[in-house]
Amino acid sequence: MGRLGMRILGIDCGAERTGYGVIDSDGHTHHLRVAGVITTDPKQPFDRRLLKIAIGLREVIRAHSPEQAAVEEVFHAVNVKTALKLAHVRGVVLATVAEAGIPLGEYSPLEVKTSVVGYGRAEKHQVQLMTCSLLRLSEPVESEDAADALAVAICHANQAAHKQRLEVAQ
Amino acid sequence: MGRLGMRILGIDCGAERTGYGVIDSDGHTHHLRVAGVITTDPKQPFDRRLLKIAIGLREVIRAHSPEQAAVEEVFHAVNVKTALKLAHVRGVVLATVAEAGIPLGEYSPLEVKTSVVGYGRAEKHQVQLMTCSLLRLSEPVESEDAADALAVAICHANQAAHKQRLEVAQ
Repeated sequence: MGRLGMRILGIDCGAERTGYGVIDSDGHTHHLRVAGVITTDPKQPFDRRLLKIAIGLREVIRAHSPEQAAVEEVFHAVNVKTALKLAHVRGVVLATVAEAGIPLGEYSPLEVKTSVVGYGRAEKHQVQLMTCSLLRLSEPVESEDAADALAVAICHANQAAHKQRLEVAQ
Repeated sequence: MGRLGMRILGIDCGAERTGYGVIDSDGHTHHLRVAGVITTDPKQPFDRRLLKIAIGLREVIRAHSPEQAAVEEVFHAVNVKTALKLAHVRGVVLATVAEAGIPLGEYSPLEVKTSVVGYGRAEKHQVQLMTCSLLRLSEPVESEDAADALAVAICHANQAAHKQRLEVAQ
């Protein structure tokens, strides 16, 4: 069979750009299936933009049938206004994933960096470089947001494999 | 005809309790159609709770076909964690209203209080008392959250009527 164990959808929430990436993974080898960005127009009313993100995400789920999903936790470091906007998007993303009946993993930026680069303080471009390397891509992923989404998906794959090994060992 | 000019859905967002209220209004006289609360279980995963709010709200919209909707703006005064949680709920509510194609009005707590009580620093119970009085209810609305939702709906009705009068006067 050509497909590895688990299909995972990673999502990088953003009001203007929500990155997504779907990988097949057995926890060791990761294979890119699709990656992209759902963009919204800042000149549009915010409720219409949120709806566009929900519809775009449903379309990705419909087309690729992921079995698991993963997102980053909200980070409090940015300014409150930005964090509140992001939380609106995140709410829509979480409800959309739940509606599709897909179990969701949530990870801190530290967990994602540690899992992908092996180093919690890795720079953004290191994460992206390592993500492409882990997926054995000859060219870097076009969009930063899609690369971030793939990094979360890889983090989830690693965590899931780790959990499974622990369960087997017990 | 028994129905007043416009049917308005007011929503009071909350992770545990999201109040809703539907009124018919011509901008002067308001008539209660329905009011209630969508509750979620804090022991459930957050994404499931968000989905429950979306589904509950869709059901209210399907049953009562509001033409307009209104919510409060996010208030920054509460602690950041609470505000972020609320923003997740608000995102889901906004996307659900947008998906139904219903135009949305957003109002600050000050605007709601001024519109309903005529006084921006009104206490919570004064807003609720005045809301019930404006709807000519013999008994108070059972839930605070539903009463808050009705207050936002009344605020929207008043604003819409005001806007219309301005347009006629021009």
